[in-house]
Amino acid sequence: MADYRFFHPIEVRWADVDSRRHVNNARYFTYMEQARARYFEHLGVWDGKDLDQWGSVLAETSCTFVEPIFFGQTIRVGVRTTRIGNKSMEMRYSLQDEASGRELARGVSIQVSYDYDLGRAVRVPDRWREAISAFEDLDEGGPPPA
Amino acid sequence: MADYRFFHPIEVRWADVDSRRHVNNARYFTYMEQARARYFEHLGVWDGKDLDQWGSVLAETSCTFVEPIFFGQTIRVGVRTTRIGNKSMEMRYSLQDEASGRELARGVSIQVSYDYDLGRAVRVPDRWREAISAFEDLDEGGPPPA
Amino acid sequence: MADYRFFHPIEVRWADVDSRRHVNNARYFTYMEQARARYFEHLGVWDGKDLDQWGSVLAETSCTFVEPIFFGQTIRVGVRTTRIGNKSMEMRYSLQDEASGRELARGVSIQVSYDYDLGRAVRVPDRWREAISAFEDLDEGGPPPA
Amino acid sequence: MADYRFFHPIEVRWADVDSRRHVNNARYFTYMEQARARYFEHLGVWDGKDLDQWGSVLAETSCTFVEPIFFGQTIRVGVRTTRIGNKSMEMRYSLQDEASGRELARGVSIQVSYDYDLGRAVRVPDRWREAISAFEDLDEGGPPPA
Repeated sequence: MADYRFFHPIEVRWADVDSRRHVNNARYFTYMEQARARYFEHLGVWDGKDLDQWGSVLAETSCTFVEPIFFGQTIRVGVRTTRIGNKSMEMRYSLQDEASGRELARGVSIQVSYDYDLGRAVRVPDRWREAISAFEDLDEGGPPPA
Repeated sequence: MADYRFFHPIEVRWADVDSRRHVNNARYFTYMEQARARYFEHLGVWDGKDLDQWGSVLAETSCTFVEPIFFGQTIRVGVRTTRIGNKSMEMRYSLQDEASGRELARGVSIQVSYDYDLGRAVRVPDRWREAISAFEDLDEGGPPPA
Repeated sequence: MADYRFFHPIEVRWADVDSRRHVNNARYFTYMEQARARYFEHLGVWDGKDLDQWGSVLAETSCTFVEPIFFGQTIRVGVRTTRIGNKSMEMRYSLQDEASGRELARGVSIQVSYDYDLGRAVRVPDRWREAISAFEDLDEGGPPPA
Repeated sequence: MADYRFFHPIEVRWADVDSRRHVNNARYFTYMEQARARYFEHLGVWDGKDLDQWGSVLAETSCTFVEPIFFGQTIRVGVRTTRIGNKSMEMRYSLQDEASGRELARGVSIQVSYDYDLGRAVRVPDRWREAISAFEDLDEGGPPPA
């Protein structure tokens, strides 16, 4: 497991669980999304309120499921940024059992810096680069992929 | 606002918010459901694992929306049981802003004690009656509706 | 069952079903919401795109659950407006099994005509009054509640 | 775009759309899941009712987002199986605008054949192999990945 400097706890909701009686696959992406929003908030770059001018939008995302997650289980999501490119960033996630630290799933997302007024991808803002690089101890080019 | 002895905190998720940029109406029922499950767990009557023999199933539910709820807002759900009948219970909910205690919404549900093996409603188990009556300080017949 | 002039089919999704293996209670409100949006679209009063100036927002909603709904079941939602007041409308819903027409659940909502710019409830627009009254054959005051 | 022999239409729900006013990323996985279930049903291998003995469970899934999807847009999901291994299958998805056929997103999933009684992965049942290979015109080993 990679070295995560930020974790966000997630309460598994009754409504997250499907007929198989474990958390539905789509909810893993909701958990990662929620942890990502809190990560940005923690770094002071985004508060969830600017919605029409600019956004860090998803270009790709994936998840590898290791163990099922159950109602009542306490989990946390590790979030880190592994690369900041010109117009995009690569982020990684680790869903873990809070008690044991065991990895239950891991994910990746590619976020694109998007200007809604211009209607196209733009350079990742310097404010984001600086805050994230400092927090993650990233070089300019970022570390090699994990 | 009624006197609630149990509150459960809810984290508003990014995915709970719809195009209107406040929490979608159906999520209020998810919040009440989640708080109800935790209430039963807190009272020691149900742990979310017995799924096939018996259930406290919804017969009716309603919600009155007072103020919109936003992403990033910290809320809590008050839960209480206001009446235990022969085969059903009436429960009430208050969704509140954590910081101010202001009521954002309130709800009611009627839960029926259902035996999945028999395929019909059955008397609310004595174990439930006792635990809930003690916690809520309910008389046998319960208080008059609020 | 009341006389509905508009029905919208709903496909039950795998993700709508919870650990109890029937449709989760909160999803009934999603089904009613979806059918309501299509009803407004059918009547030509709203296309789902005006989101910031004005809205028909929920003040109250309730649902009575008659039979469980299962994955794979084909259902439809009847929608009608039963009263148009000054600033609000009462709407009713019937969730039905498509094949048999049996009622699986029924619901009510109170919608308030809300001006987001003014930040307060306003009179239901005449265009809405006219289109809905004509479609539902409502008198000015509307019919008595069902 | 690959050659899909099965498409399932999806109605975008109001509740699928988030604050950005396009469909939330996690819903793409719900759409793929729904289309996958209908694909299995279409092939006659699974009806959504056997839930406790055996399952085709997700090991990995990913999605590439090409264009946003909006409320009111009519979409369809192409589903195909691209490889049947010993205990797993690779499936691919194409989310398309119904009217234009434009690809809005594409996805991949790896499904593992899982025996819940044994608590471990098992060989993909012959009945599944045969039905899917015949439908997709797959060789024993399956085609090379697209």
